[in-house]
Amino acid sequence: MGLGRSKVLLELEGVPVVVRAARAFADVDDVSSIVVAAGPGDLDEVRATLGRFGVPKIAAVVEGGTTRQASVIQGMEALPECEIVLVHDGVRPLVARSLIEAVIDAASRDGAAVPVVPMQDTVKRVRDGRIAETVDRDALAGAQTPQGFRRDLLVAAIERARLDGFEGTDESALVERLGAPVVCIPGSADNLKITTGQDLVVAQALVKWRHA
Amino acid sequence: MGLGRSKVLLELEGVPVVVRAARAFADVDDVSSIVVAAGPGDLDEVRATLGRFGVPKIAAVVEGGTTRQASVIQGMEALPECEIVLVHDGVRPLVARSLIEAVIDAASRDGAAVPVVPMQDTVKRVRDGRIAETVDRDALAGAQTPQGFRRDLLVAAIERARLDGFEGTDESALVERLGAPVVCIPGSADNLKITTGQDLVVAQALVKWRHA
Repeated sequence: MGLGRSKVLLELEGVPVVVRAARAFADVDDVSSIVVAAGPGDLDEVRATLGRFGVPKIAAVVEGGTTRQASVIQGMEALPECEIVLVHDGVRPLVARSLIEAVIDAASRDGAAVPVVPMQDTVKRVRDGRIAETVDRDALAGAQTPQGFRRDLLVAAIERARLDGFEGTDESALVERLGAPVVCIPGSADNLKITTGQDLVVAQALVKWRHA
Repeated sequence: MGLGRSKVLLELEGVPVVVRAARAFADVDDVSSIVVAAGPGDLDEVRATLGRFGVPKIAAVVEGGTTRQASVIQGMEALPECEIVLVHDGVRPLVARSLIEAVIDAASRDGAAVPVVPMQDTVKRVRDGRIAETVDRDALAGAQTPQGFRRDLLVAAIERARLDGFEGTDESALVERLGAPVVCIPGSADNLKITTGQDLVVAQALVKWRHA
């Protein structure tokens, strides 16, 4: 579980983002262990917070690297033996249990699975402050997390990326480079990423809505 | 102003979406006339609603076509003489006055302008339920509205699209086909499009936040 700095410690209706994200995974029967990667400045507080809220199945809280990929490598090293690895953005606290289960199922069957959502806006390629082209939206999708992989496949993909000096924006990109199939499953609009104060307001509204 | 069926009639803190969108434009000094295109089923109610809320500068409420492009053509025909035309999604009620002004300025200077926002998620090209490739996100942006054009340029772009039987997902795509430059200006995350009930919840939270 990669973490976006201290945003993971922000509270959503009294429960920190990282606690909500971790609990969602802990609530899934097929999840046996959770490793959380936190930035060096947050490490102690993230560890204490997960402990305070009593989130089960936490195998380790490790210091993440300077990139997402480095954090995933750190996390993998601390992960107990397992067949399937899910990588999740710690700043997506509203991930549904059903989505986690669907990713596990698809990754078990096909090796690699990613939740995707359709692009809402028309997508443009921009060059020098101008629009270079309108990209055919029909074939495009936004990738969410959790992204699920057979552990051996993800390890091989990370190793290949390391040898090639390739840095991906997600783990799926590393697996795609191997030429291995990555299946798409339907993501969800409420599995949002909290990256701004406004996102937090939105997430709060969604939490209240769920409980309404 | 194109309208997304009856979603424009949904209320946000007591004010219908279409009223909020139209008011944002009416509040801008440089906007002289507003034409609203509504679906045939909503036409009367949209007209009555705009009247009831006393939105100024409404030049016409016209019946839209079966496509976005057709609705824009209907709207253009009802639009009084002007130099710059802005096309807006009626389901983006939270558009800021400053964004409208920036689009007018850029379109006046450069002929065509579109607000864009960075892609939050990694963008994938999907084929047969699998990921075909990860698209280089750095150069990609999501196009919002209002999109602004010199009227003669937009008329020429629509005419060319008609002759070619081309249907675009936005007006900018039609202008790009002419080879005319379209400049990008910074859009805004809160200029969201209301297409689901959840979007409405989100928009409600943002409206409350603004007034808090």
